Amino acid sequence: MTSDGETTGASRAQLTAEFVGTATLVTAVVGSGIMAQNLSVDEGLILLQNAFATAAALVALILAFGPASGAHFNPVVTLAAARFGALSNRAALAYVAAQTAGAILGVIVANAMFGLPVIELSSNDRGAAELVFSETVATFGLVLVIFAVVRSGRAHSAAFAVGGYIAGAYYFTSSTSFANPAVTAARTLSDTFTGIAPASAPAFIAAQIVGALAAVVVARTVYPHDPIDNALDDVSREVLK
Amino acid sequence: MTSDGETTGASRAQLTAEFVGTATLVTAVVGSGIMAQNLSVDEGLILLQNAFATAAALVALILAFGPASGAHFNPVVTLAAARFGALSNRAALAYVAAQTAGAILGVIVANAMFGLPVIELSSNDRGAAELVFSETVATFGLVLVIFAVVRSGRAHSAAFAVGGYIAGAYYFTSSTSFANPAVTAARTLSDTFTGIAPASAPAFIAAQIVGALAAVVVARTVYPHDPIDNALDDVSREVLK
Amino acid sequence: MTSDGETTGASRAQLTAEFVGTATLVTAVVGSGIMAQNLSVDEGLILLQNAFATAAALVALILAFGPASGAHFNPVVTLAAARFGALSNRAALAYVAAQTAGAILGVIVANAMFGLPVIELSSNDRGAAELVFSETVATFGLVLVIFAVVRSGRAHSAAFAVGGYIAGAYYFTSSTSFANPAVTAARTLSDTFTGIAPASAPAFIAAQIVGALAAVVVARTVYPHDPIDNALDDVSREVLK
Amino acid sequence: MTSDGETTGASRAQLTAEFVGTATLVTAVVGSGIMAQNLSVDEGLILLQNAFATAAALVALILAFGPASGAHFNPVVTLAAARFGALSNRAALAYVAAQTAGAILGVIVANAMFGLPVIELSSNDRGAAELVFSETVATFGLVLVIFAVVRSGRAHSAAFAVGGYIAGAYYFTSSTSFANPAVTAARTLSDTFTGIAPASAPAFIAAQIVGALAAVVVARTVYPHDPIDNALDDVSREVLK
Repeated sequence: MTSDGETTGASRAQLTAEFVGTATLVTAVVGSGIMAQNLSVDEGLILLQNAFATAAALVALILAFGPASGAHFNPVVTLAAARFGALSNRAALAYVAAQTAGAILGVIVANAMFGLPVIELSSNDRGAAELVFSETVATFGLVLVIFAVVRSGRAHSAAFAVGGYIAGAYYFTSSTSFANPAVTAARTLSDTFTGIAPASAPAFIAAQIVGALAAVVVARTVYPHDPIDNALDDVSREVLK
Repeated sequence: MTSDGETTGASRAQLTAEFVGTATLVTAVVGSGIMAQNLSVDEGLILLQNAFATAAALVALILAFGPASGAHFNPVVTLAAARFGALSNRAALAYVAAQTAGAILGVIVANAMFGLPVIELSSNDRGAAELVFSETVATFGLVLVIFAVVRSGRAHSAAFAVGGYIAGAYYFTSSTSFANPAVTAARTLSDTFTGIAPASAPAFIAAQIVGALAAVVVARTVYPHDPIDNALDDVSREVLK
Repeated sequence: MTSDGETTGASRAQLTAEFVGTATLVTAVVGSGIMAQNLSVDEGLILLQNAFATAAALVALILAFGPASGAHFNPVVTLAAARFGALSNRAALAYVAAQTAGAILGVIVANAMFGLPVIELSSNDRGAAELVFSETVATFGLVLVIFAVVRSGRAHSAAFAVGGYIAGAYYFTSSTSFANPAVTAARTLSDTFTGIAPASAPAFIAAQIVGALAAVVVARTVYPHDPIDNALDDVSREVLK
Repeated sequence: MTSDGETTGASRAQLTAEFVGTATLVTAVVGSGIMAQNLSVDEGLILLQNAFATAAALVALILAFGPASGAHFNPVVTLAAARFGALSNRAALAYVAAQTAGAILGVIVANAMFGLPVIELSSNDRGAAELVFSETVATFGLVLVIFAVVRSGRAHSAAFAVGGYIAGAYYFTSSTSFANPAVTAARTLSDTFTGIAPASAPAFIAAQIVGALAAVVVARTVYPHDPIDNALDDVSREVLK
């Protein structure tokens, strides 16, 4: 992260979009988990409500903020974008800071709306080896779907691709697909359905980085053409100019 | 509301769209709540049916009426549109009147279809402080999503953005996201799952106005360019000409 | 139906689309009702599965057959299209015949796939006055949504508008929104969750026609411009040329 | 399969897309079935979670890989594409090999994520005659929907058409709509909710081929114009050039 292709930083509009967007995403994940847990007993029905609400909110947030910042809301997506050259390292660092701050605000807002302590460490152990493997699979798929859509010049479809992927991956991975280091960190701060014990977070985050890097390789194989010529992330690029 | 940028009023087509659209939206909210409550016991399953049906109907209604009136169906959306200069104050007042009348008709139709008294005051107390806070969050998010989509020149995506947002926010806010003063007022008139006691309504409406005004500020930060030059709400503008 | 604006009939491609599309729609309605009833006890959960499956199938079928025939699959939609001048009376009659034959085939296929008698009269009484009122409301909304989308030149959005509307209306009307005379007739032939006793069908169909005619009036108010100049149903028109 | 219209093979990008896409699809089908079965008791609720997750993942995968390979993920779709002349026989054979290998990897990943034996023969008997008939109906509908969308020049809508169709067909067919020989073969390798006993697989696959061939005939009737002139599968064609 020392050599810098371009030195352009991130704009106030971009960082606001990443901050507010990630905050709302985390509120959606944690808040809908609390609501479902308050109302239902069957664990599958709780997860269905959580997945439905999270995916629906994601569609809205990516449609809302995509043209402003690319709607990453996720440090490993920003990392992958930087590797593809769509973002300078300086801008990427600012993005990650905005995402992390937003994620923490999001969990506080969710806890507050439901009358819980605004911050409470999760006791939800997620340390099993297959859950860590599951996070690699989940993040690989998420990052691959995003950059497949972007590298084929259809960033306008990202909202539906990501919403669909997350709705599916909540169910088809054993870890319920965190797939996002900022969201993982924030979810240590709510002792509710979607929380994760702080001790389980580092392995999740490491697994997510591995999955994302693997996805970058596969995305280049499937869409080998230079993303710049290919109108890769034309909206983001236009904003960055 | 005394100085008026433009004095153009609202057309008959626009007011019909707002009247019929808001009526159908309220019928969808209240009717699906009654149906789910009649058929299921688990509160989470009832809310899932209510959220699913409401969000799906919203997608349809915004697709249907967007090109006619902007498909606001919501006084705080109209208020925000007026602040962005997309609507004269005179037209905005007519919109709000049509929305309120439509909302009341909608609850009457829902009650009648299910064989209930056509108007019955709700006994559903929603006075807790965290619910009022929740309404500010809910409305902030709704209005921000709408004007983010509109100010980035993609009003054609509003149906999916709003449908997705509401599906999510029914779950991720503790108040189940009324986020609409006309709908809130109408929901005092049905003593069923989605009702709200008249005494709880004023605080909800005040919270919604605060949330909407905050969203206007953030929407300007994320999409700072002049919405007129930006083809903001090109469909609405064309109709207003 | 004696004076005929144009005398062009319907093509083989159009009638095949209406026949296969309506058959699959009825298979979706009836089959998903049988499946859900076989697997679940809670009535709300059964209706949720039925609504989810029907709406999803509708999106697919309208996307598939829209460019061929307009994807009406519904005699009152065809009736309304004829009143708007998009279809000759002769073509409309052929459409209704294809839809009715398709609907009957659809219920036979559904019954056969689930190992039931291929035709069995329903004993599901739906004669209450509020259900008949509900069918007027349901069909008014459906036909209004369809022609709002079509008259504003966005027939390509009809799949999502109709899918969303039906998903919502299954819940927000007390009759679960049949809103289709051909489907109503066919649903007399399966004694399962989605069936309707033959004695209840005529009032449903009359209510549907009333609702559709009211929708034509309101659609003209909301979108007053001549649909032909307005690129109304450009795909259908192109095919009809 | 001996006479070959064009002799162009499949590219590395295409085969990677089919391999990774089919693997993820099978992981989605099998994994979400395991998750739902672990969490819920009601069979209808389990199927709802399975259908919701599978359809959502399909939307994402087709959006992601459509421009690369056509996003077939299914030997009978590839077979139909070859009959329509969109694919050489040589390329079709390579597609089917990639799909089959991907499907097997997908079931292994799903089993591994949930801590089950990575391969375990299913004991889920699905031999009843009406289930075989159901597979013909399911595959007929799937292939018809796909080629209707493609032959009318709207391959960009395939993700929503296929996602909608599968969500519906999980419910409206008694076999829960396997509709895919590669997925059927792979599902013999997991003894969980979505598994199929090896003895039941051959009849399913035969029924799927019959359904697909019937769909080719009907798709030609509904959209009779030459798909090449009609911009049939313009994305795939462009890649194949």
